[in-house]
Amino acid sequence: MPLDAHPSAPAPATVRDLRFAIEEFNFEYAAVLDAGKVADWPNFFTDDALYVVTGRENADANLPVGLVYCEGIGMLKDRALAIAKSMMFAPRYMQHQFSNVRILALEADGTIVARTNYVLYQTLVDEKTTIQQVGRYDDRFVRRDKRLLLRARRCVYDSLIIDTALIYPV
Amino acid sequence: MPLDAHPSAPAPATVRDLRFAIEEFNFEYAAVLDAGKVADWPNFFTDDALYVVTGRENADANLPVGLVYCEGIGMLKDRALAIAKSMMFAPRYMQHQFSNVRILALEADGTIVARTNYVLYQTLVDEKTTIQQVGRYDDRFVRRDKRLLLRARRCVYDSLIIDTALIYPV
Amino acid sequence: MPLDAHPSAPAPATVRDLRFAIEEFNFEYAAVLDAGKVADWPNFFTDDALYVVTGRENADANLPVGLVYCEGIGMLKDRALAIAKSMMFAPRYMQHQFSNVRILALEADGTIVARTNYVLYQTLVDEKTTIQQVGRYDDRFVRRDKRLLLRARRCVYDSLIIDTALIYPV
Repeated sequence: MPLDAHPSAPAPATVRDLRFAIEEFNFEYAAVLDAGKVADWPNFFTDDALYVVTGRENADANLPVGLVYCEGIGMLKDRALAIAKSMMFAPRYMQHQFSNVRILALEADGTIVARTNYVLYQTLVDEKTTIQQVGRYDDRFVRRDKRLLLRARRCVYDSLIIDTALIYPV
Repeated sequence: MPLDAHPSAPAPATVRDLRFAIEEFNFEYAAVLDAGKVADWPNFFTDDALYVVTGRENADANLPVGLVYCEGIGMLKDRALAIAKSMMFAPRYMQHQFSNVRILALEADGTIVARTNYVLYQTLVDEKTTIQQVGRYDDRFVRRDKRLLLRARRCVYDSLIIDTALIYPV
Repeated sequence: MPLDAHPSAPAPATVRDLRFAIEEFNFEYAAVLDAGKVADWPNFFTDDALYVVTGRENADANLPVGLVYCEGIGMLKDRALAIAKSMMFAPRYMQHQFSNVRILALEADGTIVARTNYVLYQTLVDEKTTIQQVGRYDDRFVRRDKRLLLRARRCVYDSLIIDTALIYPV
């Protein structure tokens, strides 16, 4: 089912609270990644989380294939470890910026369905800052011990041509 | 009168409510356009709405001329139809991002005068994502049946050199 | 002490209020600068304010050196005056956009420690809009007569290669 057609749209006051909570979540998420603390990145996900990075063409066609596919916290941790090691060889600064946080649904079990636009900027040593990718998160959040966690994050990028060395989490 | 010098600045609590409402409006507006549903675009405007896309030099000089000028829902619908047809020949992804939503005035008749910064990203097939334009919306919103609608949207772009095929709504 | 390890993290409701207040502050700050009213720029600072523009490498190493260093309102006013004069010779449009406003601490004396991501776009006559720099503000705000003022703003840019004619305030 496309997110836009979700049946359980929440009330405006709820939307405001949820949008604030998800913005705060995303700002923390970005702060961790942009500070290069990639080992802490899996902490934003549930144990059974799905993390996917895929192009908009694939997402629009409901194809599961993508550039990155992680199912479960084990795969996320493996990926974080691999990145932490490879980062030494390719120093760069990343910065995430967010906009257009939309609450699409609050489901009966408390799952929050949300979409956020992102821009990921990249600065390599001795180069100008460039747009690494522009895209959107298609997210499913759950609450665990009063904290929000990602049960699914699909990073759907518009940018068809991406630096082939896409190793850093979006 | 320049918007900055508007006499009827609203109270802080009102500003917060209005800013939230206008952010939600703009996020929906972008979601519709960025999904390519250009036929739904006129639904964000009143019947007598003004929609203008113009450069900052023109706007600063209070010149009405611009790249795009639509007065009334009829012209907006004509434009939407023309774009929907021409889009087939030039596939591209667009993404709007917003920042700096400012409530400049709440007038006696309920009109909200607001300004929002935007970036419009464009991705053509087999090309990198580029900044199509950076600019600001100078808006006048009214309420109709509890919904906000645009009575005027002036898209004032900084970018002096714009892809001459600017056909998609900003 | 790195901002991330700040001991006095405020409660969520306070965070929401503070984030709103700081967003409004930054939107006004940007509106003044982006309209070219650089003479009004020092009004956003306390008399004893610190204003620094520096690269992320320097900031991460806690080095005080930077591209721009102003201590006290006198130096800010001198800088504003110099820019106002030199702007005549290099006409350009600037636009600030903000994201990821994070409240890191509310200290006992009321000082608010905050961080905001920014993008500064620049458009020169007859050129495309470019990203002048991507970075973050590391800020310390105080209240004076119910208004927020900057006691310190450190603009920490990712962009290692910046237009050498960086004269306009960030």
